[in-house]
Order: sequence, then C-alpha cells, then structure tokens
Amino acid sequence: MTNRPLIIDCLQYSDWSEKIFRQMNEGNIAAVHVTICYHEDFRETVGNIVAWNHRFEKYQDLILPGRSANDVRRAHAEGKTAILFGFQNCSPIEDNIGLVEVCHQLGARFMQLSYNNQSLLATGCYEDNDPGITRMGRQVIREMNRVGLVIDMSHSAERSTLEAIEISERPIAITHANPASWHPALRNKSDTVLKALAESGGMLGFSLYPHHLSNGSQCTLDDFCIMIARTAEMMGIDQVGFGSDLCQDQPDTVVAWMRNGTWTLDTDFGEGSANAPGFPDQPTWFGDNRDFKDILAGMRKVGFSDTDIAKIGGDNWLNFFERSFGREEAA
Amino acid sequence: MTNRPLIIDCLQYSDWSEKIFRQMNEGNIAAVHVTICYHEDFRETVGNIVAWNHRFEKYQDLILPGRSANDVRRAHAEGKTAILFGFQNCSPIEDNIGLVEVCHQLGARFMQLSYNNQSLLATGCYEDNDPGITRMGRQVIREMNRVGLVIDMSHSAERSTLEAIEISERPIAITHANPASWHPALRNKSDTVLKALAESGGMLGFSLYPHHLSNGSQCTLDDFCIMIARTAEMMGIDQVGFGSDLCQDQPDTVVAWMRNGTWTLDTDFGEGSANAPGFPDQPTWFGDNRDFKDILAGMRKVGFSDTDIAKIGGDNWLNFFERSFGREEAA
Repeated sequence: MTNRPLIIDCLQYSDWSEKIFRQMNEGNIAAVHVTICYHEDFRETVGNIVAWNHRFEKYQDLILPGRSANDVRRAHAEGKTAILFGFQNCSPIEDNIGLVEVCHQLGARFMQLSYNNQSLLATGCYEDNDPGITRMGRQVIREMNRVGLVIDMSHSAERSTLEAIEISERPIAITHANPASWHPALRNKSDTVLKALAESGGMLGFSLYPHHLSNGSQCTLDDFCIMIARTAEMMGIDQVGFGSDLCQDQPDTVVAWMRNGTWTLDTDFGEGSANAPGFPDQPTWFGDNRDFKDILAGMRKVGFSDTDIAKIGGDNWLNFFERSFGREEAA
Repeated sequence: MTNRPLIIDCLQYSDWSEKIFRQMNEGNIAAVHVTICYHEDFRETVGNIVAWNHRFEKYQDLILPGRSANDVRRAHAEGKTAILFGFQNCSPIEDNIGLVEVCHQLGARFMQLSYNNQSLLATGCYEDNDPGITRMGRQVIREMNRVGLVIDMSHSAERSTLEAIEISERPIAITHANPASWHPALRNKSDTVLKALAESGGMLGFSLYPHHLSNGSQCTLDDFCIMIARTAEMMGIDQVGFGSDLCQDQPDTVVAWMRNGTWTLDTDFGEGSANAPGFPDQPTWFGDNRDFKDILAGMRKVGFSDTDIAKIGGDNWLNFFERSFGREEAA
C-alpha cells in the first residue's frame, strides 16, 4: 500500500495527450471519469472508444481502463490513472434500450439522461419547460439500474433530476456541478435537488469550470473550499467529491461544438455570450491535474480533517463506484 | 382532362404490392402519402427509399414518385397514383438539422415532429406531460418551413400541436385523425386544436383506422359521413380531406413494432390492449383503395354537393400540396 493520496476526478474532457496523463500520475489521480460522448450516436461513440483503446495500448505505463473500483485501486497502487468512460448525453443508445447493456459491455459507467436540450429520456437545463422523465426514460433508468450504468443528471433540468432520483432504484450522480445557492448558474443545482440526491445515497462532484464558480475565473481557492464545507454540511460528508469539468488544451471550437452540435442553425452560446464565446480562463489555482493537492491543502486550511479530505478527495467516489458499477443483484 | 374523380389519401402504410397499386389505380387515387419511417434513423430511412425506387421502376405503369402537385395531376391524367413520402417520426433527421433539407431532396414531403413518445422536437400523445416544442424543435420548424417539408402533428400531444401551429409560418397538417368530440381517443384531436389548425390554413385528414372511429370496427358509413359534415362545418370545407391510416395486408407484428420500436422492455399496447393486441378489423365498408367511391357516395347521401365532395375527396389536399412543397419564397 502507498501513503500517496487517492484522488478521483469524476469529470474531464481534455485534449488527451501524454503530457496530461503524466500530470494525472504526478497529481496522484487514481481515476478520471472522461467524457467520450457529447452528441455522438452509437457508431461514433464506438469510434471514440477505439481511440481510447489505442491510448490504453500506447500509454499503458500511465493509464489503464477503469471498469470497477478494483481497477481504480490497482491504478493507485501502480501509480497510474484509471480512465472511466462516461456519456454527457444519451445519444449513444439512440432509440434502442438494448444499447444500454452494450454500452456497459464496452466500458461505459456513467450516462447523462440529457445534455442541455430535451432528449428522448429527460429534459436539459436550457429548455424552457421540463416535463420530467419520459416514457422511454423510465424504461432506460430501470435498464441502467440493472446493468450498472450510473445515471448522471449534471446537465438536466430540475424536475427531470428530481424524478430520476425518485425513479432510480440505485443512487445516481451529478458528476459536475455546484450549488446554485453559492453561484446561481443554470447548470448549478438547487438545494432541493442536492438534498434529494444526498438522501438517496447519490453523489455530487464539485465543478471547477469557471461558469460554475462564484466570481468565475476570479473565484478564490478559499471561497471554493468554504463552498465545499457548506455543501458537505448540507449533503453529508460522504456524498461529495470532485468532478472538475476540466477541458485542458481544448480549442474554443470544441466548446462551440458542445453547445451547438448539429441541432441549430443559430449560434447557441450556452453559459458564454457573443462577447465571450470561448472557454473561460481557469482560476489561477486550478489549471491541471497536479493542482488537486493545492485544493486539498486549501480544504485543510478551512478546517477539514485528514479523513474528510480523503473522503472528498477520492474515497467517496471509490465507494460509490464499488456499489454502482456491478449488476443490480450484486449491489 | 378526365372526368374521373381525383382522390387523395394522405396516409397509408400497407404491405405494398402490385395488387394494392392496381387497387389504387382502380379507385382513382391520384396520390397516396405513404409512411416510409416510424422509428428508422436516417440510414435506415434511405434503405426504405431504395425499396421505393425499385417499386417505382418495377411498377411504373401503376405508380410514380410524387414530389409536387403537378406530379399528382400527371398521375391522375395517366390513371396512375403518385406516391408521396412522409415520416411518422423525426428519427430520420436524428440530431442533425442539416438532414431536413437532405430528406426533402430525397423526396420527403411530410414529417411528424413526434410519434407517440417524446422526441427531440415535440411530445407524443402517449406521454403524461407535454412541455411543448423544444429548442431544437423551434429550429427544425423554421428549417422545414424554408425547404417545404410539411409539419404533421397526427401523433403529437395537445400543447406541442398548438405550439407547432403557432410557431410555423406555413400551414401544417394533421394527416390522419378525427375529432375527439366525435370519438374521444387519445389520438383524436380536440376542437381547440382543429379550430387553430383550420384558422392557420392547415389540413385535417379523416382517419379510417378503427381505433379512431366511433364504435370502432362497427362504425357505420353514415356515422362517418355525418362526422365529416360536422367537422367541415367547424373547420371550413377547404381544410379537410382523407388520411385513412390504411395498413392493408400487414401482419400484427407490424403494429407491435409501431408501438414498441426498440424503446421499451415492457410491451406497449398503444390503442389496443393485452386482449386485443393486433390490428383491429376494418369497417366492412372500407377495406382497400377501391372503397373511397362508397365513401363519396355516402357523403352525397348525407347532403354534400358534388363540389364539396371533390374538395374533400382530393382537391383540398392538392391545393395544400401546391402551397406547401416548394421553397418558402415561392409559397
């Protein structure tokens, strides 16, 4: 065993490179939940998996495919980083419930029921109206529960999120968002949602994406750590972790694609604006995977114990993975 | 010119055969709007178009591809039947607004914004909640208006339908449904919807599918014709036509597929039930395309003039096609 901290980041979408994988290892990041789909259909998502298979081969001294909590423990023991696949949209299952199990077989462990817009399953946070989980959504939640594919509602609207928590027989996740009571962004979550999530055994990953931070790119580390403390107080110390939403080295064309996909002929600026359409600057204290250690130090400064820092830093997600990634009967 | 009646049926999904095409010709059916998609994605829909291209080649003495009102007039003059393509779902455009124009180029002239369930664009009539037209839906309506692809809300829910009528700058259609005030089926339409449709210049096609008929398979021809008269009175004589929803020679596996696609692991019985899961029996007076002449005779019996019979029998749809299938600037 090692005394290095075990850190898990439950959302990144970077322009993957050896440099970034080395930074993960250096930062003691035992697992990263990486996005492998924003708008892609099943076949396109498989193409992204092929690209990851090549990376697993080429960078096997740095990363390994993460399918279970044990894979994360193994990565940590070997000083590597386990890569967990997740979808930010339900587009990979198209209109076919049979693809839920197939995606799990291919390694997917998280799927959002919607991105920003209405999906076949649920409503995204940018729609004006949210009717809740659809007929197909209810079927798919049951199937995700059965195979061990975690429901992620990070980009979904309020009613859909509350209904997903209610309908799902297994705890769900909001992998990357902050409390709206701290910073009232459309993507951040109400206390109602966060309390329901916590009561059902679900997990929140704290986002470090500037649009989700109070004062944006100027948010201070202290302010961020105090927000963590208050949220842990509200939700319980075991229900929170990190989901940085780090999009390292990505060009601004990527955030434009995330927002617009191929669904609109107008330009949607999402959390940005016509004057600031690109990725916002990261806070100075969080630029890459090596900076989690500074966040943990900041948490210590605002009064967190070593045990609680270990929980939020990685142990909570590890326990959640343990309970969530297997078949329902084993849960 | 010919003195044969010009009849248009604005919805059929039969198990296409030479027999059926000959019945269309014999029945003086100048045009049939045929469904070429219930759940298919773009590529699968193209496969269905390939099958139709083969039929157009093989049965060129009986049918021809219908892309415009002129094609329908030509078919009528030659004693043939023009085949117009339509989608009962928006699945062929997937999440790509650019496919709207491509589908029009491939011959599609009608697209429902949703089938029974929630789609990316609108809500189906079987959902518990209807939030109206989505963000992508507003974009797609504008694009359908631009290229001349008619919005069909036959299977959509009330609020989505009213919003589609409101948002669309061109008249829309409900190609196959009846008034719910005559027979309160989930698929039939409220007077509110029918009046808004008529006021905007839209068209209703009267359905002959037994689940949409008062007394189902036992509905009498008289009762059906009186319903036509009352609806024409409410909507105006120029806003109604036929959309029989005829599914001739189809096995019951087809209606099960229409209802269940690949979206559910439970069995959805739609308008049927566990005890009566298959296609219902047609009324004795409407079994195939040769029987429209009996409906026209029935309409005469309840008091319709020859002019009005010609309008409802085909002229109204022909005028609607004239206004609807070209580019917006030509409208």
